[in-house]
Amino acid sequence: MIRTRKPIVVMKFGGTSVGDVSRIKHVAEIVRDYQSENPETGILVVVSAMAGETNKLVSLAKGCVDNPDPRELDVLLASGEQVTIALLAMRLLDLGIPAKSLLAQQARIATSSEHTNALIEGVDALRLREVMRDGTIPVVAGFQGVDERGDITTLGRGGSDITAVAIAAALEASACFIYTDVPGVFSTDPRMVPRARLLDRISHEEMLEMASLGAKVLHTRSVYFAMRYQIPLVVLSTFAGPLRPGVNGTWIVPEEELMEKPVVTGITHRLDEARITINGMSPDIQKISKLFGVLADQGVFIDMISQEKGDGASVNVSITVPDENSLLALETVRGMVPELAGAGATIDRDIAKVSVVGIGMRYHTGVAARLFHALSRERIDVRMINTSEIKISVLVQRKYCEAAVRAIHEEFAEFEIKTVEEIQASA
Amino acid sequence: MIRTRKPIVVMKFGGTSVGDVSRIKHVAEIVRDYQSENPETGILVVVSAMAGETNKLVSLAKGCVDNPDPRELDVLLASGEQVTIALLAMRLLDLGIPAKSLLAQQARIATSSEHTNALIEGVDALRLREVMRDGTIPVVAGFQGVDERGDITTLGRGGSDITAVAIAAALEASACFIYTDVPGVFSTDPRMVPRARLLDRISHEEMLEMASLGAKVLHTRSVYFAMRYQIPLVVLSTFAGPLRPGVNGTWIVPEEELMEKPVVTGITHRLDEARITINGMSPDIQKISKLFGVLADQGVFIDMISQEKGDGASVNVSITVPDENSLLALETVRGMVPELAGAGATIDRDIAKVSVVGIGMRYHTGVAARLFHALSRERIDVRMINTSEIKISVLVQRKYCEAAVRAIHEEFAEFEIKTVEEIQASA
Repeated sequence: MIRTRKPIVVMKFGGTSVGDVSRIKHVAEIVRDYQSENPETGILVVVSAMAGETNKLVSLAKGCVDNPDPRELDVLLASGEQVTIALLAMRLLDLGIPAKSLLAQQARIATSSEHTNALIEGVDALRLREVMRDGTIPVVAGFQGVDERGDITTLGRGGSDITAVAIAAALEASACFIYTDVPGVFSTDPRMVPRARLLDRISHEEMLEMASLGAKVLHTRSVYFAMRYQIPLVVLSTFAGPLRPGVNGTWIVPEEELMEKPVVTGITHRLDEARITINGMSPDIQKISKLFGVLADQGVFIDMISQEKGDGASVNVSITVPDENSLLALETVRGMVPELAGAGATIDRDIAKVSVVGIGMRYHTGVAARLFHALSRERIDVRMINTSEIKISVLVQRKYCEAAVRAIHEEFAEFEIKTVEEIQASA
Repeated sequence: MIRTRKPIVVMKFGGTSVGDVSRIKHVAEIVRDYQSENPETGILVVVSAMAGETNKLVSLAKGCVDNPDPRELDVLLASGEQVTIALLAMRLLDLGIPAKSLLAQQARIATSSEHTNALIEGVDALRLREVMRDGTIPVVAGFQGVDERGDITTLGRGGSDITAVAIAAALEASACFIYTDVPGVFSTDPRMVPRARLLDRISHEEMLEMASLGAKVLHTRSVYFAMRYQIPLVVLSTFAGPLRPGVNGTWIVPEEELMEKPVVTGITHRLDEARITINGMSPDIQKISKLFGVLADQGVFIDMISQEKGDGASVNVSITVPDENSLLALETVRGMVPELAGAGATIDRDIAKVSVVGIGMRYHTGVAARLFHALSRERIDVRMINTSEIKISVLVQRKYCEAAVRAIHEEFAEFEIKTVEEIQASA
């Protein structure tokens, strides 16, 4: 006898979605409505702490000690989600919907022991399915886990999303809904470009690039997890009515599920990097490798790297690093200038990184040309460039960031309808 | 080879003692000072939620639903102690004192499944000793437990004290210090009688009577637990300096450890009872028994009972019940008047219960006479009387409560020095 498992969805509600009692009631209604419209679907809910609560707990800790012990900080922070799971579960029960709150140790969300930044190692799907067997909705605390010693851990930034995606993967859920305070993923920052369009569907890979390039709606770790386990994610607003294409919700799906493969999906920007250039450096690959090794040992994350010919046989090497580490990185680089046989090092913090992302770039090559064309129309110089299979990033002077985003968005304005096939056909 | 276990003390800090960051720092200093003065003693700390926090959580729940699900309410409430154990543990660690927070499930405080009012069934002493082996101070969440399903439970009123006493019993601790916001147990309410004296030592049994008779410093459940397991309790103020006889701290010890056995230890009062009288009732014991049975089924707790001769063969039966249930009780009693062959039922809510407690009453019989003498001097009528082996309670009109307490305290003013032996010698 073959038993068909009923489909499962995971619904995750972020901090602003459960920010006060009236919002928790609203979330309960969303869950109830979904259940009554999809009676054959099993539902599991993941919630964050109430907005502001985690900051409040951190400032309590900072009031007690300058450097909170990480194990104890995790015990403290984990209390935030404990409040919201209980409140939401009691509200669901009050609406007549069977529900049960589960802390990380009850849901058996096993993690590594790196406190405040633990990695999920496993989720006990059997235990969750057991709770769900009679139709009960588990309301699981996001952001937290338990290590092999039984100590409470937390997952760091984007942690509740990661919990939701990990559970969705373990339960082989048909979708993971990420309810937040924006209606989804836009073609670019709508505060900067009013014509920014809410994307209906994008691939995991595009979302991964966009998240790491500055679209703040999802953290890269959760997108990576969803991509790895092929879980469709839906980002939507708790406050903008039901899921409706173009109005509320962006589906983030495996590439093969995309009906269209637009050349450009989105334009993102970041203002939090700085560029360091070592001039007149020996082209010796071992020296360059040593430089990167020392920076890595200091925990400095290197984003873009470029090398251009300098005077004589020398090369000029530029890197971008997070601005918060840039002065430390500059000091390190300057200290290594003799060893690198360089002439000196300079820093440029007046930069913005603007990127175009689109899975269609895999099949189409004209994007860089159109990008440079758009920027040159606005007389915006490009200081550095970096490409991957599905994205192109350029560094521009910070004051031109907005103009660059607008110009590029304008250039690719038709991406909302054109597909690779259409572009190729019209070429 | 015989290994001598090193002595252990349990230190419990209530909600006002950990009410804010500066108080948590102060508590850490108390623990540090105790440790440096008693380097050979193992210490375990139990803490409550920050004062006001539990009420805040309850009002969040009430904002969500009228009748919170008890299981979920416990999950919610248990988050309060989670905050304080983490803050105190990180503060201790910051002072260089090895410490580790433990939630109820980590300390394995096993309880029954009666949510919001669970009973402790066991404490895993081995686990706690393991944590303490290298000198680490466990900082355990009070008030909460875990049932056999792994669900979080809470212990109800006085819960953190019960946690502390249960752990002290499991670890065979030499003492359990209950740090609170008053310096200990007074001979009577010091707000009512300025000459009230801080008691240095009293027996568990006396404390049990005093707690149930209105002294609010400890809940009867924790005193009962301490009595049952013969754990010396010390009630003292977090804010009144070190333990010092007559200034800060009352020892509550097994009777056999009392050097003196004063005839009267303390005077207590309660204003929260009402008296119901059924007049002209049949003296049939089965009818009276039926009355008590019906009230018990309604959850009405009967405190005092008296019976006096009425008209003819009838009797008048008086009982006292908690005032909050008194109108329900009256209605029930009135409904049963025909069945009880009574003439009618009356209620008197204008009463106060004043009690004298002293373990020396076991050996001395003049207390009742002196009590009545003191009241008659003040022309205070006694409406009802009730005695046990170590206490006498009288009902007086409510407006005379304070006068009665003062008069009785005055009458027994010498109890602070006199012992049974001395009184017998001087008789």
